[in-house]
Amino acid sequence: MVSRIGKEIELSPVEMGSRIGRTVEINMASGTPDPRTIPVNEIRDTFQEVLDEIGSKSLFYPGAGGQQDLIEEIEKYLPRLGISKMGRVVVTSGAQHALELISKYLLQDDIIAVENPTFVETFMALKLRSAVSLPIYLDKDGISIEELEKVTKIVKPKLVYTIPNCHNPAGVNMSEDRRKRLVELSEERDFFIVEDDPYRPIAGCLPKPIKEYDRSGKVIYVSSFSKILAPGLRIGFVFADEIIGEKLSLLEQLDFSTSTLNQYVIAKILRKGLIYSRMESLSLHYKEKMGVLVDSLMDAGFHNFNVPKCGFFLLVDLGVNADVVLNETAKRGLSFVPAKAFFLRGGDTMARLSITMPSEEQIKSGVKILKDVVSSMRN
Amino acid sequence: MVSRIGKEIELSPVEMGSRIGRTVEINMASGTPDPRTIPVNEIRDTFQEVLDEIGSKSLFYPGAGGQQDLIEEIEKYLPRLGISKMGRVVVTSGAQHALELISKYLLQDDIIAVENPTFVETFMALKLRSAVSLPIYLDKDGISIEELEKVTKIVKPKLVYTIPNCHNPAGVNMSEDRRKRLVELSEERDFFIVEDDPYRPIAGCLPKPIKEYDRSGKVIYVSSFSKILAPGLRIGFVFADEIIGEKLSLLEQLDFSTSTLNQYVIAKILRKGLIYSRMESLSLHYKEKMGVLVDSLMDAGFHNFNVPKCGFFLLVDLGVNADVVLNETAKRGLSFVPAKAFFLRGGDTMARLSITMPSEEQIKSGVKILKDVVSSMRN
Repeated sequence: MVSRIGKEIELSPVEMGSRIGRTVEINMASGTPDPRTIPVNEIRDTFQEVLDEIGSKSLFYPGAGGQQDLIEEIEKYLPRLGISKMGRVVVTSGAQHALELISKYLLQDDIIAVENPTFVETFMALKLRSAVSLPIYLDKDGISIEELEKVTKIVKPKLVYTIPNCHNPAGVNMSEDRRKRLVELSEERDFFIVEDDPYRPIAGCLPKPIKEYDRSGKVIYVSSFSKILAPGLRIGFVFADEIIGEKLSLLEQLDFSTSTLNQYVIAKILRKGLIYSRMESLSLHYKEKMGVLVDSLMDAGFHNFNVPKCGFFLLVDLGVNADVVLNETAKRGLSFVPAKAFFLRGGDTMARLSITMPSEEQIKSGVKILKDVVSSMRN
Repeated sequence: MVSRIGKEIELSPVEMGSRIGRTVEINMASGTPDPRTIPVNEIRDTFQEVLDEIGSKSLFYPGAGGQQDLIEEIEKYLPRLGISKMGRVVVTSGAQHALELISKYLLQDDIIAVENPTFVETFMALKLRSAVSLPIYLDKDGISIEELEKVTKIVKPKLVYTIPNCHNPAGVNMSEDRRKRLVELSEERDFFIVEDDPYRPIAGCLPKPIKEYDRSGKVIYVSSFSKILAPGLRIGFVFADEIIGEKLSLLEQLDFSTSTLNQYVIAKILRKGLIYSRMESLSLHYKEKMGVLVDSLMDAGFHNFNVPKCGFFLLVDLGVNADVVLNETAKRGLSFVPAKAFFLRGGDTMARLSITMPSEEQIKSGVKILKDVVSSMRN
């Protein structure tokens, strides 16, 4: 009666978690950046300036592929993300929209490989257009190249989807060595790499993007202004080789969803240097909060997790069913996202804890609630 | 190597026309609303107010399906569009994004029926997911129900796509009688009707929406704030029955492309009554400009067109190849969109003329250029 996508689409557990999150005191579910860091005044002033300076033209239809002004500012910004290669920038309505465009372009009942766990919402766009999704083991150094090598000897994926930095939900970074080997493997086995890298601007020091090792145009790089600035403007971008970039631009004709005005605003914010000046302070801000979470978990006797080097999320094995735990913690004012939905296999006892919405004090209280509930379940 | 959509997507002739349009003096190609009518100051003030009043929350991720605030304002606005029925509002990034969501939800190698001609950009989203597109004859009273009846006796379409008011590119309105018969036919033959109605807010008096005659939930209504306010904010909506609305909301998880901030802004603009107060004045404004175009064409000896009752576009048969005409007029400073691409069959000599960008004087001069070029080709 309807399409396969129409049939198989379902409510994301993150969306569900966020709904619970809004109703409790300590929200460790939401992936929204820390509201305290959103520069509301600067954004407001820039909207005013753009509308005064550019006038009605800033309110015309967006061209497919993005506003030239913004594309040029992003090209200047790329080196700050560690990218020195030539290629094509395509402006999108955030990284999620970028993943949707890439999926729409590449996939039609194909085989894909993803980290296990992976980010369920971006993955959804890929999965709904694939025949098979291969889960590849993820450890503290990112995706297991060893397992990927083994698997791709037997089954050839069209693409490998990876979140190399501040992984959502696992919090880990892919090591430099694995980045190189992943690119080599993509050349040998002829698959695309979709490098989803929205956290880099707030991550501090990191290995180079996988895209930097790309020699054959098989790496499609995805970035976003959601973490460094604000997600509600819905601006991100793809950086890819010319042919792929051109095709993704054309595909934007199907939705024309990226606000012209918001593109002008981000361009101006980049020109003002606001993005650049926030990169270091935000990475320190989140590292500090993550430190509080890590210490609190250790103190509370939780040890089954990789210590995140950056980003918003920590993935902890609670040892007991995380859905049941959430049921109890929610009653006591704490929400988080049970991480099973991020896993293609396993994950029943895993919880994704986010540090963005709660204050440091709330993180400490949240972990106490978690400890109490988990302890009572273990006994 | 890539998906069917990736393979078949191509540059829209409207996009191409717009690119030429920007380089010449008299732009009768663009479908952007008249820039003189875009309330830049009011929009600027409202952005400021929303950011001051709501703060960082207006910059969080958008929920799938739309901001509750805006949904409620749209529900109050529906009666002004002639809709009194119950149903579900889904906020989208403009009507184009709505069509993309609807196509994604319903279509998978299906048969569809569309007006011949139809709007090539929205049609693209439908066509790329369909096996067959049936062109249905369009006259001064809209889609030919007679032909649709004949065709659907032989082939059963999954949906019929129609632009009932101020048709793009044909400028015509569907008669009330045909609206009723279309709904009856959809019940008999079991197809969906996608009613794309972005021009209604600037159209003045019109027959009721097709949706008003819907008894079985088969009519999906699409609207937009692009014409009445500004296209660059990218806000539109779908009004459909609960089940379809819920599914389209879920599908928004795949792109999350609708700016949260812009949704708050439109909600506030609706609350202020700005949309309501513009409806009459804008319909008069466009009718006046259309009158100038119609008179100029008549005076110039063009008679092969239906006089539009509303909207931005007039479709005229030039009697000679429109691409060749454009080549010449562009040299003399006039652009328009050759309308062949809007037709599933025929249309070589048809031109879509838009009244939004040029002034009344420019419309007159534009028609003179058109007359000169066409006359010289006929001789």
